[in-house]
Amino acid sequence: MFDLQSYLKEKQKLVEKSLDESLPMGKPEKIYESMRYSLLAGGKRLRPILCLATCELMGGTDEMALPSACALEMIHTMSLIHDDLPAMDNDDYRRGKLTNHKVYGDDIAILAGDGLLTYAFEYVARETKGVPAENVLEVIKILTKAVGAEGLVGGQVMDLECEGKTDVTAEMLSFIHIHKTGALLEACVTSGAVLAGATQEDLSRLSIYAKNIGLAFQIIDDILDVTATTEELGKTAGKDLSADKATYPKLWGLEESKAKADELIESAIAQLEVYGEKAQSLKALAEFIVSRKN
Amino acid sequence: MFDLQSYLKEKQKLVEKSLDESLPMGKPEKIYESMRYSLLAGGKRLRPILCLATCELMGGTDEMALPSACALEMIHTMSLIHDDLPAMDNDDYRRGKLTNHKVYGDDIAILAGDGLLTYAFEYVARETKGVPAENVLEVIKILTKAVGAEGLVGGQVMDLECEGKTDVTAEMLSFIHIHKTGALLEACVTSGAVLAGATQEDLSRLSIYAKNIGLAFQIIDDILDVTATTEELGKTAGKDLSADKATYPKLWGLEESKAKADELIESAIAQLEVYGEKAQSLKALAEFIVSRKN
Repeated sequence: MFDLQSYLKEKQKLVEKSLDESLPMGKPEKIYESMRYSLLAGGKRLRPILCLATCELMGGTDEMALPSACALEMIHTMSLIHDDLPAMDNDDYRRGKLTNHKVYGDDIAILAGDGLLTYAFEYVARETKGVPAENVLEVIKILTKAVGAEGLVGGQVMDLECEGKTDVTAEMLSFIHIHKTGALLEACVTSGAVLAGATQEDLSRLSIYAKNIGLAFQIIDDILDVTATTEELGKTAGKDLSADKATYPKLWGLEESKAKADELIESAIAQLEVYGEKAQSLKALAEFIVSRKN
Repeated sequence: MFDLQSYLKEKQKLVEKSLDESLPMGKPEKIYESMRYSLLAGGKRLRPILCLATCELMGGTDEMALPSACALEMIHTMSLIHDDLPAMDNDDYRRGKLTNHKVYGDDIAILAGDGLLTYAFEYVARETKGVPAENVLEVIKILTKAVGAEGLVGGQVMDLECEGKTDVTAEMLSFIHIHKTGALLEACVTSGAVLAGATQEDLSRLSIYAKNIGLAFQIIDDILDVTATTEELGKTAGKDLSADKATYPKLWGLEESKAKADELIESAIAQLEVYGEKAQSLKALAEFIVSRKN
């Protein structure tokens, strides 16, 4: 029986250590403090762990994947810092701590996001060892596509555009989440695979796995915003409702949303069958996504 | 006799066309419009041209260097968009047009900057042809280092910290400008050289050239802020003075600042002697930096 809790604990420890070492202090101190404040604020580290697990499944090592795994968390952190700004979602708490701009000011928070975003690519380019340069370039293509206007940035724009609208369709919601959450989660999986030199066939299969868990992840996020407390979430609960955001529970109701998430996870896991026992970590990670409480 | 004006005109035309083609419209339209608004707002295109000229000097072609040249302008544009935000320098005009956030709002301007920054690296990784993958990765290392906390971002933080201070030293001013302007100008030159497969010896020589023109560029920028009109500059003149910014004229006076810039350009040009006639474009570009009127 695969013990997901121990697996997560072990990998989280590895990721925390690597993140801490990835970004030593420098000058001006304030910007490094601000970048480190958000990067090392904890969290599930699901994105880096997905990258490590996929690389391992495809025959690679943690050493190969760690720079990309850290970069994925830098990118994720950067998107949270910028999304939380007063000019965007205006959030005061994140991961149970004050948001970056509440501590360092809006100007430094914008620059800390810029710094982390840039450093993610620098870190992959500079620190990836034992992987052909062509594959490292491919990973950079995957990461950049997931963050830019075709990914995270585009999703956030559509999200802002839909705020307060009463006629948000399932299609628009999908667009938001495929771009805002799905693209980066997919990048975790595909970058891990590319680092290990996966075949096109494996890549296609793992992309479907990733797309499904990405959408399930977002549905559960929307559900937790309604059902969990601020304390449980470490960020303001009920925020979607008060901001009149388009969400799955709003569109489908809570029960149908949960059923849809379960269905997506089943489809994701079906893609892993061919790998048998070796894929137990990715299978357990998929199940974790729908059972998590924050 | 080398005709700099025709050279600049020809290369500017090439860069404008390449920038326009580099970023076609997509969805959501608003973010692409906003990114294109600032990217295609004109300007001298000095950074991309420095990259093209250096690549050519080292035996490379425009085709090799164009993706990086465009990326340098995307990065420069992104830094202008974020610097102009109300949370930072709060500027209404840039290149004679309303700043990005004045047209699209602060939220979209932040995201347009994030999108351009990301796209710069994506574009280099995806579009660079005829260059070994190792060298493309090296260019990404050069670009990321120039933008992150060790470059542009760090310079802007120090700039914000020095605002309103009466005891800004020459050392602090140097830090700001080496990071805020110098790092990216140096990256233009070194990336162009790396793309063409330059030797370490050439790279060292060209780095000194670049560092010198970078500092001269900033001194002239500071001088123009005092002596030129808003119309001539296409951005608010006298802004440094009213924001009580640390500048060279404030530290040394106008005359000594100009003399220092001339001296730096002379040192820069001295590095090119070994290349003879072939380096006439880089020589002319250095001279242009101190003689420019905006």
